[in-house]
Amino acid sequence: MSVYDDLMAYQRETEALAQVAGRLGWDQETMMPRGAAEQRSEEMAAMEGVLHARRSDPRVGGWLEQAVAVDEVSAAQLRQIRRSYDRAVKVPGSLAQELARVTSMAQGIWAEARAKEDVPGFLPVLAEVVRLRQEEGAALAAGGDVYDALMDDYEPGATAAVTGAMFDRMRPRLVALRAKVLGASRQPAPLKGSFGAEAQMRMARDLATAFGYDWNRGRLDLAVHPFSSGSGDDARITTRVVEAEPFNCFYSTIHEVGHACYELGIDPDYRLTPLGAGVSMGVHESQSRIYENQLGRSRAFTGWMFEQMRERFGAFGITSPEEFYASVNRVAPGYIRTEADEVQYNLHIMMRFDLERDLITGKLDVADLEAAWNARFLADFGVAVDKPSHGMLQDVHWSVGLFGYFPTYSLGNVYAGCLHRALRAEVTGLDESLAKGDATPATEWLRERLQRHGGLRSPRETVALACGFEPDEGPLLDYLEAKFGSIYGL
Amino acid sequence: MSVYDDLMAYQRETEALAQVAGRLGWDQETMMPRGAAEQRSEEMAAMEGVLHARRSDPRVGGWLEQAVAVDEVSAAQLRQIRRSYDRAVKVPGSLAQELARVTSMAQGIWAEARAKEDVPGFLPVLAEVVRLRQEEGAALAAGGDVYDALMDDYEPGATAAVTGAMFDRMRPRLVALRAKVLGASRQPAPLKGSFGAEAQMRMARDLATAFGYDWNRGRLDLAVHPFSSGSGDDARITTRVVEAEPFNCFYSTIHEVGHACYELGIDPDYRLTPLGAGVSMGVHESQSRIYENQLGRSRAFTGWMFEQMRERFGAFGITSPEEFYASVNRVAPGYIRTEADEVQYNLHIMMRFDLERDLITGKLDVADLEAAWNARFLADFGVAVDKPSHGMLQDVHWSVGLFGYFPTYSLGNVYAGCLHRALRAEVTGLDESLAKGDATPATEWLRERLQRHGGLRSPRETVALACGFEPDEGPLLDYLEAKFGSIYGL
Repeated sequence: MSVYDDLMAYQRETEALAQVAGRLGWDQETMMPRGAAEQRSEEMAAMEGVLHARRSDPRVGGWLEQAVAVDEVSAAQLRQIRRSYDRAVKVPGSLAQELARVTSMAQGIWAEARAKEDVPGFLPVLAEVVRLRQEEGAALAAGGDVYDALMDDYEPGATAAVTGAMFDRMRPRLVALRAKVLGASRQPAPLKGSFGAEAQMRMARDLATAFGYDWNRGRLDLAVHPFSSGSGDDARITTRVVEAEPFNCFYSTIHEVGHACYELGIDPDYRLTPLGAGVSMGVHESQSRIYENQLGRSRAFTGWMFEQMRERFGAFGITSPEEFYASVNRVAPGYIRTEADEVQYNLHIMMRFDLERDLITGKLDVADLEAAWNARFLADFGVAVDKPSHGMLQDVHWSVGLFGYFPTYSLGNVYAGCLHRALRAEVTGLDESLAKGDATPATEWLRERLQRHGGLRSPRETVALACGFEPDEGPLLDYLEAKFGSIYGL
Repeated sequence: MSVYDDLMAYQRETEALAQVAGRLGWDQETMMPRGAAEQRSEEMAAMEGVLHARRSDPRVGGWLEQAVAVDEVSAAQLRQIRRSYDRAVKVPGSLAQELARVTSMAQGIWAEARAKEDVPGFLPVLAEVVRLRQEEGAALAAGGDVYDALMDDYEPGATAAVTGAMFDRMRPRLVALRAKVLGASRQPAPLKGSFGAEAQMRMARDLATAFGYDWNRGRLDLAVHPFSSGSGDDARITTRVVEAEPFNCFYSTIHEVGHACYELGIDPDYRLTPLGAGVSMGVHESQSRIYENQLGRSRAFTGWMFEQMRERFGAFGITSPEEFYASVNRVAPGYIRTEADEVQYNLHIMMRFDLERDLITGKLDVADLEAAWNARFLADFGVAVDKPSHGMLQDVHWSVGLFGYFPTYSLGNVYAGCLHRALRAEVTGLDESLAKGDATPATEWLRERLQRHGGLRSPRETVALACGFEPDEGPLLDYLEAKFGSIYGL
């Protein structure tokens, strides 16, 4: 065995344990009895302790000094392990465990606070999470920018400065488009009526199948906040069901299928290695968003969905595929990011990005977060927040310490715009397939061009090679202006 | 912090990780997509590697040398940790991991072989499991009896010699009772008809509630082979549903509720410590069997079940509570241990006990197991096995390496007989409660007298103190003769 082989054998067990920890997180959100929350936080902390000790083990440092890469793949494996090791050695194990313990508990506290509209009940644990992440960020940054250090965990190489500049270029076109759309004389009708929960779940399963989700290596369950989880041969998805809002269930499902197809599409040779997972959250989100929006909300695919809904639920007010397409893509004021239309979605992210940077830098105290959120929301969206579950309690993210994560959602949209331009240029007859409820030609192109490479290259490089051009926000904005211009007759 | 505190803090993380590994096993049997089996076996092996390394860590040996017990509880904690450490240091980590990997894979191979009636497809992996367990047993026995060393893992202090002697005393009375019952002129009618799956599951939930199962710290799911899993605040149960066999679903549920109530009934101060789980498999089985049989199959409780079934399923052929009681307790020839009546159940165990000892000692080769099983079954039960799923493929146990486990089932029945005698002597009005569908007075007595103590004392001592007398097979056999004598008019 070479030094490289020793290192990879060790790393394989670490990756397997990371999968176990991930599945424990899945269980917590889907299956765990409520009364187990406190015990679970100790279990999560113990797993994090094991993982952190393995990732920062001095043997890894020794192996990394001596291991020799013989090709592109082994070079990439070593690069990923070195990145993980460098980050792990900077963070004390006790801090890593404390973060796991507190964020596991905080999740339940957030859910209860959201249900009760109880901001004060959430603030103490949020303050604790912010403090721990500040401490972790400072350890990682080693004198550099703390927020950048946190963001780098989700999107290697990304910085607040570059991301902020991109947002500055995007905002004027998005704001202008929103103004035109909301002022247009043609306004699509919203969907009305009640749609049975079981029939929604059956349709959600069929939508997952339409995009090529491999049920032999995954499953669909309910969760308060839909998510996907797991790599290799076990990539699970979740959705939610509200009888008045079937689009919520359907598009959550398609979104999570995008994430899961990425994981399931990675070269099987990379399973349980550092290359065997999506390369970054931004690239991950590019897959979920292109499935959900550019494909799932396309005129062709919504035509098929319209027929499916009429068959399954009977008549429901909308009587033509054109009306249905417009309704699916309807732009309207709203509080909730995850329910936002494509035009406004990134404006939500820009707000979170600014607020969370201020929390991490200490410019904004958690005690003042609600006021800051509500003031900013009124300024950006022209609407006053009516209750905390429509405001700062709407997302689980901060409770679980995901600071630096929100901007990757927008980056994903930008990448999805680029990938969609390339996909359309290369895959002929895609609309004909989509119109028959078959999105697998798109999944196949994405698997071949992007998904299968896993963590082989940097996030930007991964997208650039898939597209054949350097990614920027242009294609996304062009797509949005064309699509919504057409729907709203601008 | 004292040495004892250091050791307990370390041990607490080990216990938390053991809970994680257990939950992974639960997931594998209830939720895991089929295609994830191979990856899962690596995940299980990695967890086992972590657990084994922690349990055999030289620091534990050092702490054990210096730690001082100050009371009964700390003495018991140290005794349990020493036991775990002594076992762990004898088994090489690579063997422990290999066992975890192979048994995780073997489970799926067994399930497939059983579905296809394919003994040859199962033999190679069974041979591998036997070989690994022989190796482990030899390491543990250190020159002593290999089978005893394996059995000791499930039932500390038990030996094949003492168990075999108990079986020798039980067999004549059981065989005589069976002969009288099967030859009786009065024979109860079997249950006939089809009972909707969803209504069965609803009734299963209500049965669990009737025994005081804490839904806030558990859940009920479907599994091929019902089991319970988890300690502390997360003790889950499973059942199965066959439309023609509602008793299968109901009594599997009550059985697993017995296991789960034991775990959930342990003193919360012991959570995530070595005392925080059932003390042995035999004592565990005493709880599941007393719930299932002495309580769940009692005249009083079946009277309530009869009314419940009539309300939920309508008329179903049996028209009186007396007939229903007899039908629930009907003795009939059958192949399957888990479906065996109380009279014949222990005869199944005696057969397994002999066969598995021969496998472990090498007297019986796995290639000859099917022939040996079928010959023995014919001799003991007077019936020729018609297919492997009714024979050696009926149980998951050997595929997952559970050699030395079967005798604890009979020990559990024996302990249940003793506990039932004591319970009936002390809890007045129990039949009145059971007749109203409320078994919680029994759960409360068992919790107070036995369950709450967890691993504080040895298995025998635990039962003896709960009963107020030294346990033996007498009360069980007396109970069986009285009950079946009355049902069959002997």
